[in-house]
Amino acid sequence: MIRSTRKVSRVIERILEAGPAGLFVLGTTGEGPSLSYHLRRTGRSGLPNCLRASDGAGEITDTSFVESINVADDAAEAGADAVVLAAPYYFAPSQEDLWQYVHRLVAEMPLPVFLYNMPSHTKVSFSLETVRRALDVPEIVGIKDSSGDMIYFDRLRDIVAERPDFTLLIGPEELLAEAVLLGGHGGVSGGANLCPRLYVDLYNAAAAGDLKTTSSLHRRVIELASTIYSVGPPGAAVVQGIKTALSILGICSDLPAEPFHPLGAEQRRQLEKALDALGLVEPAPVPHTV
Amino acid sequence: MIRSTRKVSRVIERILEAGPAGLFVLGTTGEGPSLSYHLRRTGRSGLPNCLRASDGAGEITDTSFVESINVADDAAEAGADAVVLAAPYYFAPSQEDLWQYVHRLVAEMPLPVFLYNMPSHTKVSFSLETVRRALDVPEIVGIKDSSGDMIYFDRLRDIVAERPDFTLLIGPEELLAEAVLLGGHGGVSGGANLCPRLYVDLYNAAAAGDLKTTSSLHRRVIELASTIYSVGPPGAAVVQGIKTALSILGICSDLPAEPFHPLGAEQRRQLEKALDALGLVEPAPVPHTV
Amino acid sequence: MIRSTRKVSRVIERILEAGPAGLFVLGTTGEGPSLSYHLRRTGRSGLPNCLRASDGAGEITDTSFVESINVADDAAEAGADAVVLAAPYYFAPSQEDLWQYVHRLVAEMPLPVFLYNMPSHTKVSFSLETVRRALDVPEIVGIKDSSGDMIYFDRLRDIVAERPDFTLLIGPEELLAEAVLLGGHGGVSGGANLCPRLYVDLYNAAAAGDLKTTSSLHRRVIELASTIYSVGPPGAAVVQGIKTALSILGICSDLPAEPFHPLGAEQRRQLEKALDALGLVEPAPVPHTV
Amino acid sequence: MIRSTRKVSRVIERILEAGPAGLFVLGTTGEGPSLSYHLRRTGRSGLPNCLRASDGAGEITDTSFVESINVADDAAEAGADAVVLAAPYYFAPSQEDLWQYVHRLVAEMPLPVFLYNMPSHTKVSFSLETVRRALDVPEIVGIKDSSGDMIYFDRLRDIVAERPDFTLLIGPEELLAEAVLLGGHGGVSGGANLCPRLYVDLYNAAAAGDLKTTSSLHRRVIELASTIYSVGPPGAAVVQGIKTALSILGICSDLPAEPFHPLGAEQRRQLEKALDALGLVEPAPVPHTV
Repeated sequence: MIRSTRKVSRVIERILEAGPAGLFVLGTTGEGPSLSYHLRRTGRSGLPNCLRASDGAGEITDTSFVESINVADDAAEAGADAVVLAAPYYFAPSQEDLWQYVHRLVAEMPLPVFLYNMPSHTKVSFSLETVRRALDVPEIVGIKDSSGDMIYFDRLRDIVAERPDFTLLIGPEELLAEAVLLGGHGGVSGGANLCPRLYVDLYNAAAAGDLKTTSSLHRRVIELASTIYSVGPPGAAVVQGIKTALSILGICSDLPAEPFHPLGAEQRRQLEKALDALGLVEPAPVPHTV
Repeated sequence: MIRSTRKVSRVIERILEAGPAGLFVLGTTGEGPSLSYHLRRTGRSGLPNCLRASDGAGEITDTSFVESINVADDAAEAGADAVVLAAPYYFAPSQEDLWQYVHRLVAEMPLPVFLYNMPSHTKVSFSLETVRRALDVPEIVGIKDSSGDMIYFDRLRDIVAERPDFTLLIGPEELLAEAVLLGGHGGVSGGANLCPRLYVDLYNAAAAGDLKTTSSLHRRVIELASTIYSVGPPGAAVVQGIKTALSILGICSDLPAEPFHPLGAEQRRQLEKALDALGLVEPAPVPHTV
Repeated sequence: MIRSTRKVSRVIERILEAGPAGLFVLGTTGEGPSLSYHLRRTGRSGLPNCLRASDGAGEITDTSFVESINVADDAAEAGADAVVLAAPYYFAPSQEDLWQYVHRLVAEMPLPVFLYNMPSHTKVSFSLETVRRALDVPEIVGIKDSSGDMIYFDRLRDIVAERPDFTLLIGPEELLAEAVLLGGHGGVSGGANLCPRLYVDLYNAAAAGDLKTTSSLHRRVIELASTIYSVGPPGAAVVQGIKTALSILGICSDLPAEPFHPLGAEQRRQLEKALDALGLVEPAPVPHTV
Repeated sequence: MIRSTRKVSRVIERILEAGPAGLFVLGTTGEGPSLSYHLRRTGRSGLPNCLRASDGAGEITDTSFVESINVADDAAEAGADAVVLAAPYYFAPSQEDLWQYVHRLVAEMPLPVFLYNMPSHTKVSFSLETVRRALDVPEIVGIKDSSGDMIYFDRLRDIVAERPDFTLLIGPEELLAEAVLLGGHGGVSGGANLCPRLYVDLYNAAAAGDLKTTSSLHRRVIELASTIYSVGPPGAAVVQGIKTALSILGICSDLPAEPFHPLGAEQRRQLEKALDALGLVEPAPVPHTV
């Protein structure tokens, strides 16, 4: 898994120690779309550097076709395994335009492609019919679904069953247990930035059909998500909850990229209490930015 | 108005001949978010080149703070009068985060700033309260509202009345007549790419309180919008309608930027008929891309 | 206009004194869907009694076909001029099902029918194509549009122009000025329960093309709407604002039908101040229900 | 379970033979809101008659407070165990108004009350905070969640855990497996009108923690739902799919209540094929209404 001794951030080190199947870099929790292109391509937390350190995939979603290609090329050079592509997020294309777009972009890609269904942020969902068309393109190797709609996910599972090499991942961590219990292949959980072991263990229990352990870890995920992610303002609550919690634990700064901003002192205290109630250990002395 | 002999596109030449108050470059109809940064900054239709040719403003909206600054700096150097800023369009910030974001970005701007309310594409609207806060910042000099919600626009008008130097513009051209009749200061009409004179005349009639002429030109705008913009697929219909119509008239290519694609032959024929019914003259021999 | 000496409520008396074209009974502001069928049919503010007193139309919208017919029959017997029909509001039908529903219901109606486009409450809009089909049915004599979408309203106007006997009304009072200035036939304004004369005057000015008077009265409508309707909780703010204001003026009780409830004392004070600022006269001694 | 020999419909007979925990009458699939009050109260498929035959609950949701009470009283007289209450579905109340409404209505109820969260039809969701308040009212004994949002359902489960007598049911049948596997108490599945045994078996397997059987039956539910419910028009597809399938099997007529209408011959053929592919037996000779 760990392929390089080059320096990565403490956050990523902790994740890799928990033994996940791989990293997902520059995604939503990673604030990818908020970073400058310079940072996305050359920063220490940028796609190439992180994926030099580990198996994994990096997000290349963009409103500009050309910029997506540029980031993908850097990712390939750094040894990434795949890139991840959501719908472009300014114009909301029709399904036919979305499909043409994916098809043309995949043809330019140096790496296998995961689709990323993220309608809350991109305003458009990959229709089941569009996913069916994607199955005919060998370079498209999987889909991550962050719609939160388990009926849609169930139908995806039926559809992708015909391509045994096609990977079906769930986005929201609150749904990881049920997704894997009923046949999904895994998840990309934002909370794994904070408690990587919890999500790896939950995945392992669910994949093994151990319903009792799954239920118990699932309950813990719900607890974490319903406390840590409910303190910040709408839109930013997940990203800021994770980042501030990591800062309380002394692992990284709580400074998010614009358009988000650090939580206030009172909200930080609420998160300290929540971390304490969850048994997530002692606050470290790293000063926060507020 | 025309300040340079440097070459601009035929589309812009025709607009400038009609005598508008200024250009609005890299906006939604201009497909700004779909262009590479290279094109946005150095292309012939890019922000600096267009605004070298005329008074006007250029859009700098981005999901990345730093990239917005980069484009604004180029615009300033080229002699632009202002920049235009919509909400960042991947994460949907809370009003407080949106306001902080605007406030901090405005502080970095080399030019006066127009806000741009475009909730259909950015998922977030500037609340009336946020606009009230913007009135205290002298560098923010106006707002363009593309929400299509005339009740919101009415309330905006009330609010901005206290800052006589603050400009209130309407986005959707179908609403230009009523916006100006009842006190708005103007509009940014996508259809002006196709028939610039129509929109300049409509503005002039409405601003002069000439109800009869306004009604008649308004009716023509509705006719144009309800035929030309209803042929393409949802999401792309306005951009593709304008671009294909311009291509039929021999003025530019019908090739949109990804994620949109040229209309099919049948749709192109529908647009030819619509242009004919509107009395918009003879198709020129420029070949289209299909 | 006034056809009977039978007792109606003070609210209706005041409206009739202002000389409107007619009444609209049991609509949204009239809380029609919240009343028991007994009240809708036999109450003093019920459809038959009110329309016995005046020209006008009554709403018969229901989730049950049969109940709509029952109310319509009572309305006809009482001398109503028309009934008003929105989409049924539990199931959101497809346009084809909606059309079949309208078509079959109209066939059972003892009176001419107005369609009522109210998507915020019914979840479904009458598509332009469905309105086109309605034009072929002589018994359908008009449409009231409360979508708040003036682009849709503009297109409606184009479509209904071919049926000179077809009446096009606007719902939201904030849009009455522009709707009538640009060719609409009138409006159904909730605020007319409170200040009937204001809306009658605004209609008359706009219909006469008197832009100056229209602008000034329009501004007053915006002022009223943005203060009186913004005090109560979302959903109930318009109904409660009107009802509480009427109670402050001593005209009726402030008790709304479930699921709404009287405003608290603090909110009532806010409304008193707003009424005062608007120059709407002295509070009367009628005790309120809180 | 079966408490009376009085005649009920074939549909209900088949359901009762499968041994469910109880009936849910006049719900969404039962087209309750489309029926006249006469039918809801006195029809053979009405609430009293059905619940005379079995344990179960009946829906009393209405836009009118008084009509809800009337139906509830009839239900109590017939021996129903509980009534079910969704938000009133014309006006969308604030959470505070919704809570007041529920609180006052519960006080008038002759039977225990289930809340019913059905935001797609009522436009408003019971917030977690409102559900917390409901736990303090002993007469409120459970909630059925049809939001389709499993993250919300997970949080509901956490909240209601403190009231051991409080029942948590899932609406969409596609989510029954995961809801029960992870701690929900059961479901109200529309498809049980068509294949009652399948849903009873699925519930039993999931409640027993038999992951293998659950997965296999879950897959069958998905298959049924994704074929039978995708033929009709949007809005009506589930109701019409079930009703037409039952008519193909010779069990009841395919005539839905307005605003829905029977499917066309081609759609009926599609459903015949789907039923055949699902192994749901031989078409009976009952003529359909088209």
